[in-house]
This record gives sequence, structure tokens and C-alpha cells, in this order.
Amino acid sequence: MKQITLVMHCPDQKGIIASVTNFIHENKGNILYIDQYVDRENKIFFMRVEVAFTASAKVTLPTIKQDFEASVGQKYALNCSFYDPDKPPKMAVFVSKYDHCLYDILSQQLSGELKVEIPFILSNHRDVEHIAKRFNIPFYHIPVTKETKKEAEKTQLSLLKEHNVDCIVLARYMQIVGGELISHYPDKIINIHHSFLPAFPGAKPYHSAFNRGVKIIGASSHYVTEELDAGPIIEQDISRVSHLHQIQDFLKKGRDLERVVLVRALKLHTERKVMVYNNKTVVFV
Amino acid sequence: MKQITLVMHCPDQKGIIASVTNFIHENKGNILYIDQYVDRENKIFFMRVEVAFTASAKVTLPTIKQDFEASVGQKYALNCSFYDPDKPPKMAVFVSKYDHCLYDILSQQLSGELKVEIPFILSNHRDVEHIAKRFNIPFYHIPVTKETKKEAEKTQLSLLKEHNVDCIVLARYMQIVGGELISHYPDKIINIHHSFLPAFPGAKPYHSAFNRGVKIIGASSHYVTEELDAGPIIEQDISRVSHLHQIQDFLKKGRDLERVVLVRALKLHTERKVMVYNNKTVVFV
Amino acid sequence: MKQITLVMHCPDQKGIIASVTNFIHENKGNILYIDQYVDRENKIFFMRVEVAFTASAKVTLPTIKQDFEASVGQKYALNCSFYDPDKPPKMAVFVSKYDHCLYDILSQQLSGELKVEIPFILSNHRDVEHIAKRFNIPFYHIPVTKETKKEAEKTQLSLLKEHNVDCIVLARYMQIVGGELISHYPDKIINIHHSFLPAFPGAKPYHSAFNRGVKIIGASSHYVTEELDAGPIIEQDISRVSHLHQIQDFLKKGRDLERVVLVRALKLHTERKVMVYNNKTVVFV
Amino acid sequence: MKQITLVMHCPDQKGIIASVTNFIHENKGNILYIDQYVDRENKIFFMRVEVAFTASAKVTLPTIKQDFEASVGQKYALNCSFYDPDKPPKMAVFVSKYDHCLYDILSQQLSGELKVEIPFILSNHRDVEHIAKRFNIPFYHIPVTKETKKEAEKTQLSLLKEHNVDCIVLARYMQIVGGELISHYPDKIINIHHSFLPAFPGAKPYHSAFNRGVKIIGASSHYVTEELDAGPIIEQDISRVSHLHQIQDFLKKGRDLERVVLVRALKLHTERKVMVYNNKTVVFV
Repeated sequence: MKQITLVMHCPDQKGIIASVTNFIHENKGNILYIDQYVDRENKIFFMRVEVAFTASAKVTLPTIKQDFEASVGQKYALNCSFYDPDKPPKMAVFVSKYDHCLYDILSQQLSGELKVEIPFILSNHRDVEHIAKRFNIPFYHIPVTKETKKEAEKTQLSLLKEHNVDCIVLARYMQIVGGELISHYPDKIINIHHSFLPAFPGAKPYHSAFNRGVKIIGASSHYVTEELDAGPIIEQDISRVSHLHQIQDFLKKGRDLERVVLVRALKLHTERKVMVYNNKTVVFV
Repeated sequence: MKQITLVMHCPDQKGIIASVTNFIHENKGNILYIDQYVDRENKIFFMRVEVAFTASAKVTLPTIKQDFEASVGQKYALNCSFYDPDKPPKMAVFVSKYDHCLYDILSQQLSGELKVEIPFILSNHRDVEHIAKRFNIPFYHIPVTKETKKEAEKTQLSLLKEHNVDCIVLARYMQIVGGELISHYPDKIINIHHSFLPAFPGAKPYHSAFNRGVKIIGASSHYVTEELDAGPIIEQDISRVSHLHQIQDFLKKGRDLERVVLVRALKLHTERKVMVYNNKTVVFV
Repeated sequence: MKQITLVMHCPDQKGIIASVTNFIHENKGNILYIDQYVDRENKIFFMRVEVAFTASAKVTLPTIKQDFEASVGQKYALNCSFYDPDKPPKMAVFVSKYDHCLYDILSQQLSGELKVEIPFILSNHRDVEHIAKRFNIPFYHIPVTKETKKEAEKTQLSLLKEHNVDCIVLARYMQIVGGELISHYPDKIINIHHSFLPAFPGAKPYHSAFNRGVKIIGASSHYVTEELDAGPIIEQDISRVSHLHQIQDFLKKGRDLERVVLVRALKLHTERKVMVYNNKTVVFV
Repeated sequence: MKQITLVMHCPDQKGIIASVTNFIHENKGNILYIDQYVDRENKIFFMRVEVAFTASAKVTLPTIKQDFEASVGQKYALNCSFYDPDKPPKMAVFVSKYDHCLYDILSQQLSGELKVEIPFILSNHRDVEHIAKRFNIPFYHIPVTKETKKEAEKTQLSLLKEHNVDCIVLARYMQIVGGELISHYPDKIINIHHSFLPAFPGAKPYHSAFNRGVKIIGASSHYVTEELDAGPIIEQDISRVSHLHQIQDFLKKGRDLERVVLVRALKLHTERKVMVYNNKTVVFV
């Protein structure tokens, strides 16, 4: 039995669901999971389908893709992607000095909870090199200064290409990623911002939250776009604080939040459950 | 434009979604919202569809129901219900002495948040009669003792029939509802139990929770079945407690929870978003 | 037995707790509840004490207040307030057109959950007058236009004085309260803002949240200060949203949040559990 | 400057707080943090104090302990413990096959978030041996069968003694710990149970939760006592589930919960913020 995940969107029209399910039905596919959503304001249709084809159907990903695109795909001008759930995406990890998110990503990958390949860890510092070593993952140290930033990004980009990287996680990477790199990985660079966006974008959000006297802090994972901390939000979560909590407690609770929110976002992304449009996300759970 | 809500379930088979959406498509219906779920273990298919028919389609609820049942319904042995979202269900309120849930139901109904008609409030005490009066709703006082229980249930049943009641909410009604009444309103009597079921069924759950030293308390809203507090759960929520909270605080936090959880369940039920099977619920949100 | 609640703050010094508890001990008071907090950055000490004096102690609020101030109070330059928990504060309700918070306040006051007297409801519209009537509470209709704003505030102020109002709740009152009124009720005007402050201050926060594609929305209750939506936060809470939720769903979930958060803040305020400093709150729970 | 943490409880009497704070005051100690709680039903007084003594005070833990016990301690029959926050406790890790909690404990210890020494990892299987190796921690494989259980426990006990272990975490250790071992480490063995206790004690709780159709699942961390899963609860947390979640999803969400709840409990325990009485906990946060 061969499983395939289809993720698609197109202008909303009558009859799409019927056509897609008919196609699968006719190709002896069995729908394991279907989720669809229509953005009525913008008239866009989104669908994610997990299909299992019986062995007798002799379906392969390339053939079914071709057949689908030539029929239903063309008819409805569908923008459709096909994924093989047995091939985990290759995810590069960018990180600076904080190690809590990095540890969680590596542990959950080893545990089998986060289904990715990690071709390398890249950092502008050497602080986490020992962790890469402990987990037997290649480590690249690419320092970034104002002067070397352009050059560093070139090196990063060639590393990413060389390793056939599918997506990038910024696991508390404290450098602003350049537009060139972003343009090569649209909706494929995932950042964790340590605040409840859009409150407190930019630097030192916990300090701002502490000074404002909030009763709840948050963390947000989002795709990176050119505008800082303004990309499509994938996942957010919060934690209660009170006057009892000092700025160190905010930071500590924040680290716990960041860990949880980032890995949740990574799982959603790598399981192909996130679709981006209009700087927002559709997340099928 | 005429809106209709379809709620259906049947043994899972290939092609159902295609058939249903085709039917709607052919009848000039526009799907506003579709949600479906397949219980793969038990091989049951569930679907809820909100459709808007254009004026030109000249569709009425009885005609579309008849056409659907004669075609798709019969083909797949669908168990299907049709609802008119403009006709709110008639919901009787049973209550004893605690008034917090009652107040919330009446307030939210007046506010327009909870779309129901309330033909009457029924109580085994007179404590809340003044509230019924304040909100201009008929009040029936039907005391229940061991001796009069059978008789009381007969009176209740005839009141319910007389008022064409669709569903019943037990808004902290402290009597056990008899099997006869339950059998007339299967999956239509909604109770709020003041614990995180299945922990602490039966009487005085907050006291049990307090004695056990739990750090979280809960409330559960469920359909009433013959077995006490064991019916299909519609909604649950929780609240944190600590050693600082005395039994009175548990009760107080509990009342806040009960209010919120019960009204949420009532909204789900009256918007036809809950389907029952196997003593569980499918809740489309 | 006579109960008294003391709430105090002062520059942090060694020995305060010992002095206060000694004073109570010597006056035959029994501490029911004590909570204290030191803001180490700003070196401020905060304490809230609930004391029960035995009948034999012959203590009255004025005498114990006088004795305390003349001894411990003077020694440590304490800023101290004494409250009689049996005398609920008088709280005026300001509201515009939305009735959900109003209903909740009135219901919980009647239920005995929110211990306040409500001398009157004031609105710039007539939409909620029928609710005031239903709950037998005096209603004042004071329309506000650009031209009449000054005059309206004068009328409001004289009404507040006439009724000996202790605090004011803005239960979705859609007018900006003037500086004159605020200066008469510092840290005594409680507002509910329908966003997770400091995100989305000002008008139409749910629309902004929807457009930003957030995964969590919030509501915040705070004391009113001259700067709009920037006063000390008392309580916040959140609710999850997803791409499935349209702007109407945001508004609906928001109303549920506002109700809950505002009444929680009111309970904390009226039970004298909130202390304000530096535009933040210390909340003893 | 020398910091010391005092944790104490005794029968509730008037004047204790004054006496303790006076003692600290007189010994030139500065209270950094004080939290106290009175269980009025059982008339027990609990207090936790963090004190900083100035260098000039020449205080050491043994001397201040002796002085305190000879004066205040004796007067009030205080049961008091003194801890040096700079000496992290030695915590043995017991684990079977599931590695998610183990990874989290080791990562957070390395990150510096969880302040413990881990003298060894002990397992009845060899599955996690490679993880112990990766993190350079001694590993003991002590298989347990019905026949060898007694013997195994003896070996465990002698290992614990040999390593001067202070506390034990059962990080998904699937054997029932014997009474002998429990009696040597009262309120010092911390377990994670994968349900919202007291719902679903014993084996396969997620399966039971799934079958009951709950809308919320939980995890509970508690001290181990002779009665299975009935010891004092330290921390609990929950996660929402719906009909969309299959039993595998329950297990997956459960693992995320277990990780978080267990490490939170370990932090509370190792920071001396948990006090046990009457099979409940007082948790100072």
C-alpha cells in the first residue's frame, strides 16, 4: 500500500471536492483523512488529503501527480503539491547561543516524534558546537559581523543548496536573515519569536512584557518574511505570570514556551499541515 | 436565499462525499461549510454540511429532504437530519436551587448568543421562581420525593410534550432523571456535571477533588443516559487550583466552570454540531 | 468576631512583617490570611492581611486603624487601608450598547458571587435601559457628543458623588473617559479591553487580530489612566482561534472572554486583592 | 553573601511568623522571599523562606540551623529543614523503554534549567543505554522479573545508598516500586502518571480515556506511596482532544504532556518548593 499526501489550493469554485474525491475513488485510492477550508472573503479553496492506494492500484507518486494535474488540476487551476509521508524533509538548524530549543529539536528527532533529517547545524557562535558533536550532526561555524554579513549569507546559501535542504529552523538564531536567503526558501524558514506577536516584536520582548505588567506572556512561531517578526503565524501559546515573577522568571517561563511552540510548529510544517496565503496560515490539525 | 443544515452518518463507503457534494451542486446549492469525519475503527462516516440555496433554486426543506433521501440517502443507507437554522430549538430548563447556570442561560439567550426558545423553567424547589418571573418565563414547580417521583416524571413528560420541547438542559438539577423520560429524549438531555469526568462521578465531586489534593478541577457537560454521569461527553474544561484554595474556593471556581462549559455545550447542541455514536460525541467546531 | 482586611505598602525595610504580626498578636487578632510581596527592584513592600478579632478584643475598625497608624504605621511610613469585608463597595456601571458584560455583572451580583452594591447603570444610549429595569436598578441616560462631552462628564461626576460611589466599571462603555473623572477615581475605574494588551490597543482589536492571522485572542481588564488602554493590567485571559474562525467568531469568542475576564477583575478589586504601583498591579490570589 | 532556604511546618500557633522573621532580622539576614500557608482545617502552619546573610554576619548553614532550632524551633515545635541553594540534590533516574521524559530531563539539566546532579540512570531494559552513553552518565541495567524483583530492589537500594542519592525520578519506569524502597525515600520518589489522576489510574490510561470519549487528557506528577498512583500530587496539566484524535494521537499528545509536567514537578521539588502533608502537597510558586 502506497500513501500520498496532497495539499492544494485554488480559487473557490463549485464541484471541486466532488471532482477530487471522484478522481481518488476512480484510482482505487482510499481517503484516510480529508480536510478542506474555504476562505469566503478571498474566495480561496484549500484542501489536504491523505490517500492510501492499494498495492493493486500500482500507483506511484509521479504517475498519480501527472494524472491528477492533467485532469482535475487543470480543470480547476489547482495549485497542488504531492508528498510522500515516508520521506522526511531535510531541515537545517540555525542557532546562536541559547541551547534550549536546539536540545528539544534534537531530542524529539531522535525519539522519532519530529520526523526530519537534520543535515547540519549552523551557528554564528561556537557555544553549541559541543551539542552538535554529542548528537553526531555536522556543525558549521559562520560568524556574522556587519562587514561579513553578505559573505556569510552566500556561504549559508551554498551550504543549504549543497545539502539539498528543504526547510530551515531558526532555533533562537539572533541574526536577521537576509532577503536573498528568504527568497530562496519562501514559507520554508520557521522562526520562534519570544513574545505573543504582534505584541513586543523585535528585541528584548520579555523585558518589555515585564515592564508593561502583563499577566500572560507568549511565544509565537512564524514563517520568516522580509518584514521582521511579521510573517505568517503558525502556532502560539501562552503562560500565566504574576507580580511574583521577576524578569528572570519571565525568561525561564519563556524558554519553556519557546521550546514547546517551536517544535509544535515544526511538526505541523513537516507533516504538511500548514498552508500559507495572504500572510496567514491555514493549519489542518 | 434559503439555508439548510444537513447532519448525517452511515457505514463508511467510498464515494459518499462525492455523491453528497454532487447532489448539492446539481441542486444549485452552495456549500458554506462542510466537515466530515470517519471513525476508521468502527467504520462510520459522519458529515455536517451547511448549504445556501439560491432563490432561483426554489428549494424548501421538505422538498430537498425528500429528493436527497430518495437518491443519495437510499444509495448509502444514510441516517440524515435536516435543520432550518432560522428555527431555534425549544429547550426546557430543569433546575434545583443553584442559580448560576440558570442566570447564564437566560442572559445569553436574551443577548442573542444562545439561539433557543425557552418554553418553561421547571424546578423541584421554589428558590429560582423569582428568576423565571424576572425573565418572563413560565415556571413549573414539581416537587420530587421518593414517593412522588414516578408521578412527577409523568407530569414532566406531559409538560414537555405539551410544549413541543426539542431538548432539555439540566442546569444543576439535583434529581436523577428517570429512564422513561430519557427514552423519550435520547441524546437530547444535556447535563452539567461538576467534575472532570470520569473522575469523581456522583455526589460532592469538589469535596472529593479537594480531599485528593488535585491541582486542577474540571466540569463536564454530557448527554444523559441511564447510567449516572456516564453519557457521551460534549464539552469539558478545567481550572487550576492550589493548596491556597479551600473547599469554598473549589466550589466557587467550579461554579464559574460549570456556567461556561454548560453554555458552550448548549451552543454546540443547538447549532447541530454534535453527533453521538458509541457513547462518544463527534463535535464539529 | 470582627473581621478586618488591611492592605498596605511602604518602602521595604527590615522588620516590617514582624512588627505588623506582633501588633495583631498583641491586639488578640488572629491572622486568617497573610500575603506579602517585595518588589526588590523598586524596594517597595506590599502586604494584605485578613484578621479576625475575638469578641473579647472589643476591636472596631476605627480604633484598630488609629492604634495601628500611631504605632507601626508611623514607624515604617506605611501607606495603609482598612476595609470591613461586610460592607461591599458601591460600584457604578457604565455601558454603551453591548449587553453581555452587563448581564454577567448583574447576574453574578444577584447570585451573590460578586459582592458589590450597584447604585446605578449609566449609558450614552438607551439600548440597555430594559435590562436595568429588569434588574430594578436606576438607569441614567447621558448621551455624549463632541459638543456635550464636557457637560456630560460634569453630570456623571455629580451622579457619582451623590451616590457615594466607590468604584466604576466600564462594561463595554465605548466613550473615552475624561481626565477630570479619572483624577477623582484613581485606580478605581475598571475597564475591559477586548484584546490581549499591549497588542491591538484602540478600536476594532478583533478585526486587527483577524487580519494579522493570530492563533490566540485575548481580553484584558485594567485600571483606567489618562493614556488610552495603557493603565495597570488586573487580569487577562485568552482563547484559541484558527483559520476556521471568521471575524464574527472572533467577536463571539471575544465576548465570552470579556465577560469572564471583567468579572474576575471586579472580584479581585472588590475583595481588595489588587494593589497598584508603577503602572503595574500586585494581585494577591 | 550566604543564601539559605528554610522550609518548615508545625501546629498553627499565634506569633510564629513574628518569631521567625525576628530571628532572621536579629541575625542580620535579609528575607529574599517568604511564603507561608495555614491549613485551617488541620491547623498546620507551613513556611518557606529564602534568606541572604551578609558576609559580615559570618553565618554558616550548620550554625544558623543550630541557633534556630535551639530558640524558635524549640518554642514552636517546628519541623524545619535547611537547604543550601548552591548544592543541587543528587537525583537518580529510573526509566524503562520510553525515552521522551529521559531526554527532556537530561537536556534541561545540561541547559542549566533543572539544577540536579544525576549520579546514574537505571533501567530494567537496555533500550535507553545509548542515551546514557551519549550524555556521559553511568547506566545500570537491572532487569526485573517476578522472581528477581526482591533481589533487584536490593541492588537498587544499595546503588542508591552508594551514590548518596537524595531523590529518585521515575521517568516512565514501568515497574511498581516496592515498599522497602519507598520507605527509604518518603516523599522523595517522583513519578509521572500518564493520566489526569484520579481518573484512569493503573495501566493504559490513554486507552481508557479514548474509550470514554473525554475531551481533555492529562498527566500528573506525584510522590510515590505504597498505594499505586495515589500519592500526593505535585503538578498536573492537560491537553485538549477531540473526535479527530485517534489513540495514537492521545499517546503523542500525552508524551508531550508527560515531559512538561514531570520536569515542572522536578524543578519544584529540587527548589524545595513542595511540602507534603496529609497525602497532599503545599506548592510555593
